[in-house]
Amino acid sequence: MNRLLAPTPPMGWNSWDCYGASVNEEQLLANADYMAKYLKEYGWEYIVCDIQWSEPAADSFDYHKFAPLCMDEYSRLIPAPERFPSSAGGKGFKPIADYIHSLGLKFGIHIMRGIPRQAVHSGAKIKCDGVSARDIAQTFSVCSWNTDMYGVDPRAHGAKEYYESIFELYASWGVDYIKCDDIANTEFRPDKPYSAKEEIELLRGALERCGRPMVLSLSPGPAPVEEHEHLAANAELWRMTGDFWDSWDKLHDMFSRCFAWQEYVQPGAWPDCDMLPIGRLAVCGKTSWNKARYTNFTHDEQITMLTLWSIFRSPLMIGAEMRDNDEFTLSLLTNRELIDMLKNSHGARQLRRNEADGKGEIVWISKGKDCKFAALFNTDDKTREISFDITDVALGGGKYKVWDMWAHKEFAVTDGEFTAETAPHGARLFRITRD
Amino acid sequence: MNRLLAPTPPMGWNSWDCYGASVNEEQLLANADYMAKYLKEYGWEYIVCDIQWSEPAADSFDYHKFAPLCMDEYSRLIPAPERFPSSAGGKGFKPIADYIHSLGLKFGIHIMRGIPRQAVHSGAKIKCDGVSARDIAQTFSVCSWNTDMYGVDPRAHGAKEYYESIFELYASWGVDYIKCDDIANTEFRPDKPYSAKEEIELLRGALERCGRPMVLSLSPGPAPVEEHEHLAANAELWRMTGDFWDSWDKLHDMFSRCFAWQEYVQPGAWPDCDMLPIGRLAVCGKTSWNKARYTNFTHDEQITMLTLWSIFRSPLMIGAEMRDNDEFTLSLLTNRELIDMLKNSHGARQLRRNEADGKGEIVWISKGKDCKFAALFNTDDKTREISFDITDVALGGGKYKVWDMWAHKEFAVTDGEFTAETAPHGARLFRITRD
Amino acid sequence: MNRLLAPTPPMGWNSWDCYGASVNEEQLLANADYMAKYLKEYGWEYIVCDIQWSEPAADSFDYHKFAPLCMDEYSRLIPAPERFPSSAGGKGFKPIADYIHSLGLKFGIHIMRGIPRQAVHSGAKIKCDGVSARDIAQTFSVCSWNTDMYGVDPRAHGAKEYYESIFELYASWGVDYIKCDDIANTEFRPDKPYSAKEEIELLRGALERCGRPMVLSLSPGPAPVEEHEHLAANAELWRMTGDFWDSWDKLHDMFSRCFAWQEYVQPGAWPDCDMLPIGRLAVCGKTSWNKARYTNFTHDEQITMLTLWSIFRSPLMIGAEMRDNDEFTLSLLTNRELIDMLKNSHGARQLRRNEADGKGEIVWISKGKDCKFAALFNTDDKTREISFDITDVALGGGKYKVWDMWAHKEFAVTDGEFTAETAPHGARLFRITRD
Amino acid sequence: MNRLLAPTPPMGWNSWDCYGASVNEEQLLANADYMAKYLKEYGWEYIVCDIQWSEPAADSFDYHKFAPLCMDEYSRLIPAPERFPSSAGGKGFKPIADYIHSLGLKFGIHIMRGIPRQAVHSGAKIKCDGVSARDIAQTFSVCSWNTDMYGVDPRAHGAKEYYESIFELYASWGVDYIKCDDIANTEFRPDKPYSAKEEIELLRGALERCGRPMVLSLSPGPAPVEEHEHLAANAELWRMTGDFWDSWDKLHDMFSRCFAWQEYVQPGAWPDCDMLPIGRLAVCGKTSWNKARYTNFTHDEQITMLTLWSIFRSPLMIGAEMRDNDEFTLSLLTNRELIDMLKNSHGARQLRRNEADGKGEIVWISKGKDCKFAALFNTDDKTREISFDITDVALGGGKYKVWDMWAHKEFAVTDGEFTAETAPHGARLFRITRD
Repeated sequence: MNRLLAPTPPMGWNSWDCYGASVNEEQLLANADYMAKYLKEYGWEYIVCDIQWSEPAADSFDYHKFAPLCMDEYSRLIPAPERFPSSAGGKGFKPIADYIHSLGLKFGIHIMRGIPRQAVHSGAKIKCDGVSARDIAQTFSVCSWNTDMYGVDPRAHGAKEYYESIFELYASWGVDYIKCDDIANTEFRPDKPYSAKEEIELLRGALERCGRPMVLSLSPGPAPVEEHEHLAANAELWRMTGDFWDSWDKLHDMFSRCFAWQEYVQPGAWPDCDMLPIGRLAVCGKTSWNKARYTNFTHDEQITMLTLWSIFRSPLMIGAEMRDNDEFTLSLLTNRELIDMLKNSHGARQLRRNEADGKGEIVWISKGKDCKFAALFNTDDKTREISFDITDVALGGGKYKVWDMWAHKEFAVTDGEFTAETAPHGARLFRITRD
Repeated sequence: MNRLLAPTPPMGWNSWDCYGASVNEEQLLANADYMAKYLKEYGWEYIVCDIQWSEPAADSFDYHKFAPLCMDEYSRLIPAPERFPSSAGGKGFKPIADYIHSLGLKFGIHIMRGIPRQAVHSGAKIKCDGVSARDIAQTFSVCSWNTDMYGVDPRAHGAKEYYESIFELYASWGVDYIKCDDIANTEFRPDKPYSAKEEIELLRGALERCGRPMVLSLSPGPAPVEEHEHLAANAELWRMTGDFWDSWDKLHDMFSRCFAWQEYVQPGAWPDCDMLPIGRLAVCGKTSWNKARYTNFTHDEQITMLTLWSIFRSPLMIGAEMRDNDEFTLSLLTNRELIDMLKNSHGARQLRRNEADGKGEIVWISKGKDCKFAALFNTDDKTREISFDITDVALGGGKYKVWDMWAHKEFAVTDGEFTAETAPHGARLFRITRD
Repeated sequence: MNRLLAPTPPMGWNSWDCYGASVNEEQLLANADYMAKYLKEYGWEYIVCDIQWSEPAADSFDYHKFAPLCMDEYSRLIPAPERFPSSAGGKGFKPIADYIHSLGLKFGIHIMRGIPRQAVHSGAKIKCDGVSARDIAQTFSVCSWNTDMYGVDPRAHGAKEYYESIFELYASWGVDYIKCDDIANTEFRPDKPYSAKEEIELLRGALERCGRPMVLSLSPGPAPVEEHEHLAANAELWRMTGDFWDSWDKLHDMFSRCFAWQEYVQPGAWPDCDMLPIGRLAVCGKTSWNKARYTNFTHDEQITMLTLWSIFRSPLMIGAEMRDNDEFTLSLLTNRELIDMLKNSHGARQLRRNEADGKGEIVWISKGKDCKFAALFNTDDKTREISFDITDVALGGGKYKVWDMWAHKEFAVTDGEFTAETAPHGARLFRITRD
Repeated sequence: MNRLLAPTPPMGWNSWDCYGASVNEEQLLANADYMAKYLKEYGWEYIVCDIQWSEPAADSFDYHKFAPLCMDEYSRLIPAPERFPSSAGGKGFKPIADYIHSLGLKFGIHIMRGIPRQAVHSGAKIKCDGVSARDIAQTFSVCSWNTDMYGVDPRAHGAKEYYESIFELYASWGVDYIKCDDIANTEFRPDKPYSAKEEIELLRGALERCGRPMVLSLSPGPAPVEEHEHLAANAELWRMTGDFWDSWDKLHDMFSRCFAWQEYVQPGAWPDCDMLPIGRLAVCGKTSWNKARYTNFTHDEQITMLTLWSIFRSPLMIGAEMRDNDEFTLSLLTNRELIDMLKNSHGARQLRRNEADGKGEIVWISKGKDCKFAALFNTDDKTREISFDITDVALGGGKYKVWDMWAHKEFAVTDGEFTAETAPHGARLFRITRD
């Protein structure tokens, strides 16, 4: 596998948190424009169109069950022109990809594993002589939360060809990033936990042969830790949890997941903390369970999230409708020091975790070039003085400079321990160098 | 519930064992003719058309996955005229039912729980204003071995109306017996064991309201013993095991199942041992796993099967292509003494079971009017002398007549114990009366 | 094994329920006199001296932990002369046994498995050259509720000789019955469930070789049903439960235990329901948990108990201080019809049990010579009309006489079903014969 | 609790590995002399007399079951004068302790939890008015491998007084260290896992009140990790495993145990890897399972053991008959750099473990003053080049000096990674400082 596809954690924007299943061309392009103007210089580059872009009537976070999808003659889903006008006439996502490329950015799309149920039931052909969609569908393999697809039987003649045909199409559009869904979790499924393993291999094989480099992202989580080798061999990123949203419980839970995966972070293979639900969310409305709002996270919680995601080296995907970003939100995304750590550090690990009833202190450390990073997290609901002993990351016998990476100023010069006041649910992030 | 629908165990013929999914009108009618001529006088009455009668091209025991099915405007499956010519022009099974009724017999059909996937994907309507097949489908509820249907969400508006509409149709055809499949077992299913409980209740409700009495049979097994009350409240018969075929292991296993269910046999509610795989089987051919053959059971094993099914009071459904019955097969089905026991005995129970490594003796007893029945089974592979103490079923102090119900002659007159030579895998069946 | 040792269930009296660990010679002999005078003619024959007869100071149901015990030079416990004066001078239980034999009765004693801890710690010898008590003790095998003994290591040289030496002693005394304790249950023990299996075999071997026939009884229960063969091969009786006392819950629970063991009742090998806590109990006093009282059972409960014990064919051991028996208590023990059933019936089994929340009806049936027995039990707390269908035990076609075995008069003559009013927690017992 | 009792891991000698249950005064004193002469200056200080010093005839690793023990009038075990002549006349261990103290060393003894069974069975008194040994014994609480004691019932009147009386005696002798056995493991015990918890508290309470500081060591292991707080609150050291001997499997297994306990190492509370089976072992002979020998460990394995024990900061107790130490053995014990790390480092943790089938590399790191320690272990059976990245413990940007703590010379000066050839089952240990 070509590790160069994602030598550092992918950074970008994904349409799900703000537009659910309903994102359209205008929204995609406007957010691309925003990224090019305000964020690109910091390293942000992917614009990812999430689920159900082939459903003409999608309008919220809910799926219209059994809704007709736009599909080509080979049982391949194509963008709905009602939502993506430039795709009309069989052009697919190429015009959008071209535009995004013209901004110096990259373009990603969401897919579901499998083949459209509508192709199967209508007896549609696939791009493999004499084989129809029916022939390759795994009859009992269905997603528990979406009706679009049947799984593909990896042993069926035509299975490989079908997956190759869709990657051929995506390559022709100029796609740079594939987020494949319903494929990586360990929860209950009729066809056994992580049983889509063989479909993951089919996907990877097709991707490798399609002639265009694309990053492969697997969802949803929790992906099983014990499959870390298989995941790293077949994908650039994969989710460690179910969908992440703006609640403290989910954020607090991510510390445990990062700890469980800390040994398995490596260039080209990134365990993924999921999108950043910051700024304006759930713009599309209409959905009972997901109201339009500015993020429920406090400023301190957002700093905690960005700090953890970055020191752990998770991919960063912005969930906001970026045009509505306030100054604070933008500041989170343009912290050069943070992004430098994300891109260039390694060996992150939890140094200690002292909590009672889920409240207390967690400390992570990491290594950079000629420096160490220390992230102090306060999971308590009151301010805490969190101390850090420099000799945990350095040799003593001299002075060390402690730089505050969120305040962007020197915090201390010391030869031993220092203490930092940390807000409730907040974090402090320091770079430590020799004086 | 009207217990009169099946006051004694239903007796009939079912097309599955000889024709799989492919039975046609000629075969149905010819077997009905045979039954009327040779078996009706013994109490045999049902002719049941098994699975996939709406699939035009069915030709074996295998299902053609996602094959188009014949369906009316309300998403209701109808017979394929290619296989059932008299059904053409919207007449459904009525002509066949009429013919069978004219012979003095009754007519049954197989259905799968749920609604056709093709109706759901094509957006077909159901017989309920403003509701479509899509609206009532349970999106993730699929059968593990057949692609015809989605389960119905019992809480969806239109679910009740859909089930009522199919029973209305069956009533209009003159159907007397419904074998509903994919509904009663406890094996793995995405939507939990025996989770079709609510669909069973929908079925029963629709049946009760349809204006025509029909017997309801639930498949496949194993139905859970702990649900015996629910089953008895909603069905006339239900399977105790998976599909039964002509192997000694399956026959031997049925003794345990009968023992587990012996307390729950009652008029109108019959635990079912499944079809009798006797005579010519798997006529339709083409199927790798089920070759055309005369039954693999020895004569003795067939006597064991008929004896157990009858003393236990299981429904009896003939699996043979009856036109090819040999004399022995016909003799099994025309043992008036056996059938009299099936219809008029009660209180059957296992008296003793002495086996080592699955080989030995099993004795069942049962009560008739002024008589007792004793069935001696030899599960060993060599002949055994099996003894029976009459005082286990009678008061002593006098002479008792022991009548051999398979040889049709007096076996002994005794005031105590008697011993009967029993063939390997064979059985002896006795009626005991006062002398 | 010589089955003739207990061809019918042993009947007798045991000192535990009235005297706990403290019974003395006067009490034993007086109860023997009572038995000879009032009960012997009905079949009662054993007088059994229960636990700790070698402890001089025993005075209640509690054990004095680590109390010194009377012991001979070979580490064999002997009766305490303080409590059994006739044993003085090394005569042991012989004078008492002689007296009991002179009344035409038999004499039994209680023992604990193992060897006295005091012998082990004092380094006493055993009757085996060069071997001491220490050499054969299983160091970690202790009883959880009594401190008298260590288990014996069955593989130690001297183990067999020790057990032989104690049976030699008991034989010399004229003992007819051994109740061995701490040996048959499946509850927690450091050396594994039913691990005294090998000590049971040692006991049996020694008994067989001692030259005097003795009945062997194993306590406490619950003995494991799956060990029924081993138990039957090594003992005449064994307990099915923990200690039984005069509470309805324990009585009600015995129905389940009898059902679990019903297949394994046979001449010479009797699952045991434990003593009958009737009449005056716990006479010895001083014990907090067991106050002196007349039995807590109602008359109806006592009839239920005697009926169940007798139809099941449990050994019957009277728990009362018999000298204080009232007329009702004596009447329970002198029902010749009941005792005739106990001695001469066979094949008892539960016919049906219909209860909700532990209240309802239980029916047992059994066979006698030219008759059947039917016991109707009302486990409800209100009177019930319990019906019985004679054809469950007899052939129809004639009249049957139903005799009430507690009222000693004809109850009905019928050709089918009859109904009997049964008191709360009470029982009816009938003998059914041809008219 | 007074943490000063063991501010650094205790270092000493224990008689078990060389003398089993049979050590005598001459052997104790000679080893004390050896320690004073050769080892004391390196920090070694305890001379511990292990199990059964009150048994006159002990002569091997086997216990003589139920052997009489020397005991005073208060049921307290005292040294057997046959083996410890100076103890005659009621002087106990005082003369030996005095001698050891005169050498500038400290003296420890082994005890079993509980009260002597012989005291209980003989009805001996304890030092508490009106209470006898019988009154406080837990009747069913016995050790599974030794017959000396009964557990003490913590709720019995006299339990506290008994434990106080033994500590009073030990204090009067001048004992500095108590190794209490049969008290800390989680394996099967009749009275539940780690159920001696209350006896541990009794011990600690008595120790705190006895007027003399003593270190408390609990055996055997595995002590339960989840009880780490209770252990740390009540003892200075406790075993993490069952008995450790000179086999590679046991040594290899210790890495896992150290990892499991690494968070819980703290001054005054030391998880214990058990004795060092080096040099001459099992001198006492006569025992089938433990032959006299020089340690089975290779030199490399001994270096691995000393390195792991020392970086983890386990107590160090020498198992050898020290008079027979060869040069290599002595060199292991006199590595000042190693002992300095043992006494003055902190924060040891496993950095990485890469093994397949139990063979590969394990790296531990730790902190000292102005230095870091790195221990590289080769668990493979062939030589490996193990690499270490200095930036895992230090900040880069300069040169670091790498000192070989076993070769006592500079290994490298580097600004990044170094690689060290490591023998099969061997270890390398480095101190890293700024250049």
